[in-house]
Amino acid sequence: MKAIASVALAVLVSWPTLGLPAAPARTMADVLAAAKADDWRELDPNNTLYLELAAGRVVIQLAPDFAPRHVDNIRLLVREHFFDGLAINRVQDNFVVQWGDADGRKSVGTAKKTLPGEFTRSAAGLPFTPLPDPDTYAPQTGFVRGFPAARDSATGTAWAVHCYGVVGVGRDNAADSGGGTELYVVSGHAPRQLDRNITVVGRVVAGMELLASLPRGSGAMGFYEKPQQRVPITRIRVAADVPEAERAKLLVLRTDTSAFNDLIESRRNRRDEWYKVPAGRIDVCNVPLPTKAK
Amino acid sequence: MKAIASVALAVLVSWPTLGLPAAPARTMADVLAAAKADDWRELDPNNTLYLELAAGRVVIQLAPDFAPRHVDNIRLLVREHFFDGLAINRVQDNFVVQWGDADGRKSVGTAKKTLPGEFTRSAAGLPFTPLPDPDTYAPQTGFVRGFPAARDSATGTAWAVHCYGVVGVGRDNAADSGGGTELYVVSGHAPRQLDRNITVVGRVVAGMELLASLPRGSGAMGFYEKPQQRVPITRIRVAADVPEAERAKLLVLRTDTSAFNDLIESRRNRRDEWYKVPAGRIDVCNVPLPTKAK
Repeated sequence: MKAIASVALAVLVSWPTLGLPAAPARTMADVLAAAKADDWRELDPNNTLYLELAAGRVVIQLAPDFAPRHVDNIRLLVREHFFDGLAINRVQDNFVVQWGDADGRKSVGTAKKTLPGEFTRSAAGLPFTPLPDPDTYAPQTGFVRGFPAARDSATGTAWAVHCYGVVGVGRDNAADSGGGTELYVVSGHAPRQLDRNITVVGRVVAGMELLASLPRGSGAMGFYEKPQQRVPITRIRVAADVPEAERAKLLVLRTDTSAFNDLIESRRNRRDEWYKVPAGRIDVCNVPLPTKAK
Repeated sequence: MKAIASVALAVLVSWPTLGLPAAPARTMADVLAAAKADDWRELDPNNTLYLELAAGRVVIQLAPDFAPRHVDNIRLLVREHFFDGLAINRVQDNFVVQWGDADGRKSVGTAKKTLPGEFTRSAAGLPFTPLPDPDTYAPQTGFVRGFPAARDSATGTAWAVHCYGVVGVGRDNAADSGGGTELYVVSGHAPRQLDRNITVVGRVVAGMELLASLPRGSGAMGFYEKPQQRVPITRIRVAADVPEAERAKLLVLRTDTSAFNDLIESRRNRRDEWYKVPAGRIDVCNVPLPTKAK
């Protein structure tokens, strides 16, 4: 079995690298093995959703830093069982998987049907771990409490970036036409053109493969053409409302630690035998966000 | 049904755009509707493979510009029925789908088992349509006869870029340990760290959804743990060996035309009502490579 997956630095790379560290080369496995207990953190149960499908559980970390009003609204929708019995109704190859009230008929109870978009926010007060690597779409990328993010010093704004696994709020043409009754997750190459155009509310931390492997919809934009093709949602719950014994036993690597910086470098310039030419740079959407069992 | 997917230019973007054209704004649909017959081309039947699965046909355009020796070898393997009855044995979420002789036991007949890697080539003589947009991984990106590509004027080399749907040759640690008996296709965010480390031999032009929606393997690196989980390959054929009536009726948009440049601009700065902030730039792996029925 040949792998596709070392840095023999014998090959000279002319495209300038961002500085190979003087320290001994370490692989991602080395970095993770060396990470200390406090390099890892628990998910906040009040900001974690469990999307339950027949195939299993999808764990979503919510992003109150980027979309506080939408996160509150979605938590309310979840607690009033809005999503239970609804379905995944759109799977567009190399783009998104989408679920919720496709027909717009279900009562939102005490929640809001729509909210003003939370597409960007002030960069002030946001703990931002910057990446030095250049990016096609933003003047600066980095990480904010586990989320891939970007910021622009000229406007003083920051936003969550659409990487694989990022969850957002479907909307119609008007910027204020979404509220959380339809959600999507990025399931292909990062559609960065969505950045600053839509509200990002979370990211999938576990179970992404359950969504990404669904049959593609044959309708326009990947919508399932027949209602029976839709994939039922058993229920969505806020982790805080789930008995502790039934919660996901997961830890996520903090993104504001030197362990995370070491991990980025281990991926920017691969140290294992397989790689012949180190990339020298890394795209924010190619940085892994490791989890481990508690 | 809320969509996720115009450019109201009311929002000022400080991150400099690459020049909005003076011409009227056009969507991708406008550009494709205006494309002339000779903006489209047929696939060369001698450089097209049909990967036949129970679920349907995957059409692969081979890349003799980038890997002439591997393409010849794979064509020979195909013609000697090497792949028929083998299987897809690895599906790693957000990375690759891989198939071939995982156990390395099948005779390669008159083909070569391994070849020297064709990781890069001379940029000289290669028709290269450059993208002006900055890229994280390469000094310049662009397109070569339908393939996303990169080049470096300092070294005079060019290479095919690992975007979604790109097909490469699995290998062991040695650079010359691959030959085409195991192939993979990129099924997630572009793993650009593979660029210049492995031989790219083609790209999927149709049927990618059949591969991308396969169940993920639960073994290390996404390998299926049980032989019965593998997805059988009915057969692979060179299109030229298939009766004309049974060939895929497909045209692909040429990438060396003004229509293609217009298409890139329509995607760099979206013109439909939905988009509020034009991205201003585009990643080589976010440029669609349109096909249409003949």
